[in-house]
Amino acid sequence: MTITRGFQKHPAGSVLVEFGDTKVLCAASVTEGVPRWRKGSGLGWVTAEYAMLPSSTDTRSSRESVKGRVGGRTHEISRLVGRSLRACIDLRALGENTIAIDCDVLQADGGTRTAAITGAYVALCDAVTWLGEHGKLSDPKPISCQVAAVSVGVVDGRVRLDLPYSEDSRAEVDTNVVATETGTLIEVQGTGEGATFARKTLDAMLDSALAGIEQLARLQVEVLAEPHPKLAAERAASAEQAAGGDGAE
Amino acid sequence: MTITRGFQKHPAGSVLVEFGDTKVLCAASVTEGVPRWRKGSGLGWVTAEYAMLPSSTDTRSSRESVKGRVGGRTHEISRLVGRSLRACIDLRALGENTIAIDCDVLQADGGTRTAAITGAYVALCDAVTWLGEHGKLSDPKPISCQVAAVSVGVVDGRVRLDLPYSEDSRAEVDTNVVATETGTLIEVQGTGEGATFARKTLDAMLDSALAGIEQLARLQVEVLAEPHPKLAAERAASAEQAAGGDGAE
Amino acid sequence: MTITRGFQKHPAGSVLVEFGDTKVLCAASVTEGVPRWRKGSGLGWVTAEYAMLPSSTDTRSSRESVKGRVGGRTHEISRLVGRSLRACIDLRALGENTIAIDCDVLQADGGTRTAAITGAYVALCDAVTWLGEHGKLSDPKPISCQVAAVSVGVVDGRVRLDLPYSEDSRAEVDTNVVATETGTLIEVQGTGEGATFARKTLDAMLDSALAGIEQLARLQVEVLAEPHPKLAAERAASAEQAAGGDGAE
Amino acid sequence: MTITRGFQKHPAGSVLVEFGDTKVLCAASVTEGVPRWRKGSGLGWVTAEYAMLPSSTDTRSSRESVKGRVGGRTHEISRLVGRSLRACIDLRALGENTIAIDCDVLQADGGTRTAAITGAYVALCDAVTWLGEHGKLSDPKPISCQVAAVSVGVVDGRVRLDLPYSEDSRAEVDTNVVATETGTLIEVQGTGEGATFARKTLDAMLDSALAGIEQLARLQVEVLAEPHPKLAAERAASAEQAAGGDGAE
Amino acid sequence: MTITRGFQKHPAGSVLVEFGDTKVLCAASVTEGVPRWRKGSGLGWVTAEYAMLPSSTDTRSSRESVKGRVGGRTHEISRLVGRSLRACIDLRALGENTIAIDCDVLQADGGTRTAAITGAYVALCDAVTWLGEHGKLSDPKPISCQVAAVSVGVVDGRVRLDLPYSEDSRAEVDTNVVATETGTLIEVQGTGEGATFARKTLDAMLDSALAGIEQLARLQVEVLAEPHPKLAAERAASAEQAAGGDGAE
Amino acid sequence: MTITRGFQKHPAGSVLVEFGDTKVLCAASVTEGVPRWRKGSGLGWVTAEYAMLPSSTDTRSSRESVKGRVGGRTHEISRLVGRSLRACIDLRALGENTIAIDCDVLQADGGTRTAAITGAYVALCDAVTWLGEHGKLSDPKPISCQVAAVSVGVVDGRVRLDLPYSEDSRAEVDTNVVATETGTLIEVQGTGEGATFARKTLDAMLDSALAGIEQLARLQVEVLAEPHPKLAAERAASAEQAAGGDGAE
Repeated sequence: MTITRGFQKHPAGSVLVEFGDTKVLCAASVTEGVPRWRKGSGLGWVTAEYAMLPSSTDTRSSRESVKGRVGGRTHEISRLVGRSLRACIDLRALGENTIAIDCDVLQADGGTRTAAITGAYVALCDAVTWLGEHGKLSDPKPISCQVAAVSVGVVDGRVRLDLPYSEDSRAEVDTNVVATETGTLIEVQGTGEGATFARKTLDAMLDSALAGIEQLARLQVEVLAEPHPKLAAERAASAEQAAGGDGAE
Repeated sequence: MTITRGFQKHPAGSVLVEFGDTKVLCAASVTEGVPRWRKGSGLGWVTAEYAMLPSSTDTRSSRESVKGRVGGRTHEISRLVGRSLRACIDLRALGENTIAIDCDVLQADGGTRTAAITGAYVALCDAVTWLGEHGKLSDPKPISCQVAAVSVGVVDGRVRLDLPYSEDSRAEVDTNVVATETGTLIEVQGTGEGATFARKTLDAMLDSALAGIEQLARLQVEVLAEPHPKLAAERAASAEQAAGGDGAE
Repeated sequence: MTITRGFQKHPAGSVLVEFGDTKVLCAASVTEGVPRWRKGSGLGWVTAEYAMLPSSTDTRSSRESVKGRVGGRTHEISRLVGRSLRACIDLRALGENTIAIDCDVLQADGGTRTAAITGAYVALCDAVTWLGEHGKLSDPKPISCQVAAVSVGVVDGRVRLDLPYSEDSRAEVDTNVVATETGTLIEVQGTGEGATFARKTLDAMLDSALAGIEQLARLQVEVLAEPHPKLAAERAASAEQAAGGDGAE
Repeated sequence: MTITRGFQKHPAGSVLVEFGDTKVLCAASVTEGVPRWRKGSGLGWVTAEYAMLPSSTDTRSSRESVKGRVGGRTHEISRLVGRSLRACIDLRALGENTIAIDCDVLQADGGTRTAAITGAYVALCDAVTWLGEHGKLSDPKPISCQVAAVSVGVVDGRVRLDLPYSEDSRAEVDTNVVATETGTLIEVQGTGEGATFARKTLDAMLDSALAGIEQLARLQVEVLAEPHPKLAAERAASAEQAAGGDGAE
Repeated sequence: MTITRGFQKHPAGSVLVEFGDTKVLCAASVTEGVPRWRKGSGLGWVTAEYAMLPSSTDTRSSRESVKGRVGGRTHEISRLVGRSLRACIDLRALGENTIAIDCDVLQADGGTRTAAITGAYVALCDAVTWLGEHGKLSDPKPISCQVAAVSVGVVDGRVRLDLPYSEDSRAEVDTNVVATETGTLIEVQGTGEGATFARKTLDAMLDSALAGIEQLARLQVEVLAEPHPKLAAERAASAEQAAGGDGAE
Repeated sequence: MTITRGFQKHPAGSVLVEFGDTKVLCAASVTEGVPRWRKGSGLGWVTAEYAMLPSSTDTRSSRESVKGRVGGRTHEISRLVGRSLRACIDLRALGENTIAIDCDVLQADGGTRTAAITGAYVALCDAVTWLGEHGKLSDPKPISCQVAAVSVGVVDGRVRLDLPYSEDSRAEVDTNVVATETGTLIEVQGTGEGATFARKTLDAMLDSALAGIEQLARLQVEVLAEPHPKLAAERAASAEQAAGGDGAE
């Protein structure tokens, strides 16, 4: 598992997450204003959209923009990502600004939705820091906890963390867990794949998941200890402009 | 909670479920053939669509056909219902036939998705019986377990089963559980509503949910002990035709 | 023919119409404001949407929201219902409020559009009464006449009122008539089904239709003589709240 | 009223109808095969689409292709035109061929749907003749009657035939009548525009309409007495090719 | 090549262009206001939509409104027409008004997009004149140059101007050139049809194209020397009204 | 300018192109079969889709799948990429196989469409090599020439190659040129941005463009001299499997 910040230069936060062969690009873009139903509330908004590149899957998948409609799975994961991130942020502190999270899967090999959430948290932190630096937050620390996610499966009767696609598609049970760095739960989704599962299997999966999430949370902390890529670039650009001004562009 | 079979005359199974003020019409229609991607497999298919009447909600909701697209929530619940029912049925026994489950919410007051699943199971049983009577099953008992569902919430710190809408919208945590009559799990979806929840809260919610599901499973058994409404009507019609034949139509 | 008021609790008017085996749920929901093109006019608006549940028809029909577009027949009937009801109401008296009529067919066996109109009139009356009770009408009696509808067909050369589907599909001519309680016409739509018809056949169909409408108008009067279901429930609720306050919710 | 045949060179039948300032282009295109639901029946099909150019109306109307959906009025008229023409033709004689009627309004000034039907009949005759000449009809005379249409309105209490738009929009009642050359009815659609009308008004409108249709039917006969424009062009082209062959193309 | 002004009575400019067997109706409609993204800028807007009637092509093409989406070719040509016309007009002089250009192909036989541009220029001039007469221009001469277009192809190795469809589809290279009356370029689009072409072929095509455009520009001048059809009609109508007033309408 | 092959593991060809700050991911996926209109022809097909990630642009752009329709610019570029690549390949040699090119812009800073074409050519070569290795080509060298593209602009009167976005948006003229390694043209698209340009400016832009394309063609040759990434991985995997076989997966 690696997390690379500053993958793109335009969004306030942009993170490439790699989880085995799975690669997801998570961007957090700041826009002024909020959706219509929220105007005048004084509250900000965090929303998310998830999508897969047609070339990211084993056999090419057709492009949803060309089909003219977003599929059920896409809808479902987009909603999950947004809901998970909203659990950790004080929307009042954002003022009437929106942070749009885009999770675009560049390569899929199992666990794309949980990789997306784990990376999106880092991108969100970068977007919030950027907002703070530009004086747009009413509370300097609007994020109350970390958010990370893993998937756990049962294959041949054994609980396994973060299955690659080849095993994922054989899993008898598949559970996605979103939790904080202290093991408090945000979302649990357990599904028998055409099968049922005992309650104690759910317990074993949760044990395994929470252990995995603890590790991911440590990785997030490490990665966020580095300087903010976009702010660093902005500072370098204005320093250069101050120094010379003659050479530019 | 009441379950009324034979609410409509056309589908092979048609059930009206009433859960407090929530009313959902669950129909199971049989059609020959399967979706294209399944042709030639010898397997049948069970699919589900969930929708709310515009007039079913507290303030009128706009019609998805008029908007020209199905919303994310609708997509998500449709997929959940289909997945839950497929956990209990041997698709091989259906042959290349499709059972389409339609869950249409006539009145909404919390818990529509779990009411839909609980009722849809009964409609599915009726459709399967009807298929059997018409000689279209390769295995006379293709249903291996019962499927029922409840939602559990935490309101003011206390775990509560099947909240009406007025409390549901205040719930801090909301969990939907789908399980069999023996308490084996099919699907668990727990969500903190803009909040997080401890693992032991999840445990308490599961205890409460499984107790509720046991009761619902007993109700399903009772209700299914009555004669099959559509088969009864078909037999009455052919008896009448045999008897007279002169007055008919 | 039976008309049941108060079938749903949320809309201001909600009526279940049963015409033979045809069952249509007609709801009249009140919303503040009018469509954009009407803003600032001081006039209200009455609009209608008609739809069939997939499970309502002999063989399951596909869901228009899933297809992503409303079919021609649906469009046509929605427009007819709206136009028919607007003939009986003074839109000025509504102020800038909209009454949205939803006619959802629960079971279809011929004559769904005329059943929808006949029931929608009753739901509209209930919505208007509710608006009046809540002090939102500028004229206490904005409805100037009753609106009811029947379909008439010619089968095997004989004029027949309100054919069930089995005969309707054999009809050589099919005429839908919308009229008031005094036999004044609102809409006449006569169609030869791949055939033509003589003018005197039209006359015979109109005679038969107007006789049927007279009966329906009497039924509407009877049904509306009962107390208003939603207002009754609202009064009961506030009486209870006034009385106790301890038991509430 | 004028009818010009051979307005376009590609379709088998192409007619420009001018009714006052209303101009409608009616084309009848022949394609092999029938819609899927009709395959193998041995029957042909006649279908129609009606549309208005954005520039045809008093103030520019937006383009339905750009909006991404066909409006209710468009749907309704398309269905009316198709149904009306199917009343006069023996679909068995066509074999499994489809005639697609396109009625595109170039300029609108009232009565576009009735002008469309009257012109489309002539285009249909041309398409049928063309099919016959190319040996594709099993019965040489598949058309059993003429089809023409007029609209009748009541303005200031007087019945008036084919109102221009300025008066049409003031009409209290508006009736569209489709009938054959002998006055047998095909379709009658009478609508009070936010008003009701007496049965004897309907009778007066029908009298007026049938007189108008008789005149239109005579005009159709006259116009169709001229040679077939596309067949004439085809013959001229093959004669030229036979004569020379050197200059061609 | 012929250009007929005043083909329709409603739009401020309406032109029928005939180029061999190609016929395109170009209308320029004036509406108050500009698209949302341009509001408050003080600038006007010129936009264009191109479409083909289903009956305009050799074999009937399906209707884009019915398919529910605009195809790539349609999009591309609409954008080209709009961009080309905006090169000749000072949008500031229009004030916040929009001129919508509609190019509807009535009959297609090669070169429809270049015919559309050449005709649309004339319609645009008429719309601008009409705006000027009605006192809505801040600069009396907002059009700075003429705009005309031709297509050039290479068939059997020879450069040919404005190919009919039968040759166009055999062309090895196809270039569309939009230019002013003085040969200054506005747009050049050269495409090898599944083939490549030498730079000197491009030069030869440009020579030929600019010669053709010079001729078209002369024709535009001639045609625009005639009186403005819509203004003439408006003047005649108001003269008549002034004279009599008794006979009107 | 850098070109990285083997960026993704699933498609037969996958290339990341970086042109200044512009980054485009070009994938070439092989699927059996061809579109319906081409079935039975014995010919293959090459098609392309272009899209921008919402987070790739300076301010976030909305997602086309969510809007439910592909915009005009997207359509236009997708068509350009496909047409350009088809100019260099013998579709007969592919047999009835389709190569789908996906160009997804990860970061945009001017010249995305020309970067896409230049990278897509390399991905196409990789897909063709992969097809050859798997024995699916009837001709071992179906690619007849290289394809590369640049954009040229005029800024402040001077011709400039491959402008970054900040200058591109100020350009007076913008020309995209697609050509082969020998300077033979495939596509030329020159546009005055709300302005016109002299023919000699076009000549100067072409000179500059062809010089740039020559350089890109050299880079393509260099990059393609390296081993095929996907074939190398496949060989490594099967070698490993042959060696051990015990540990796998």
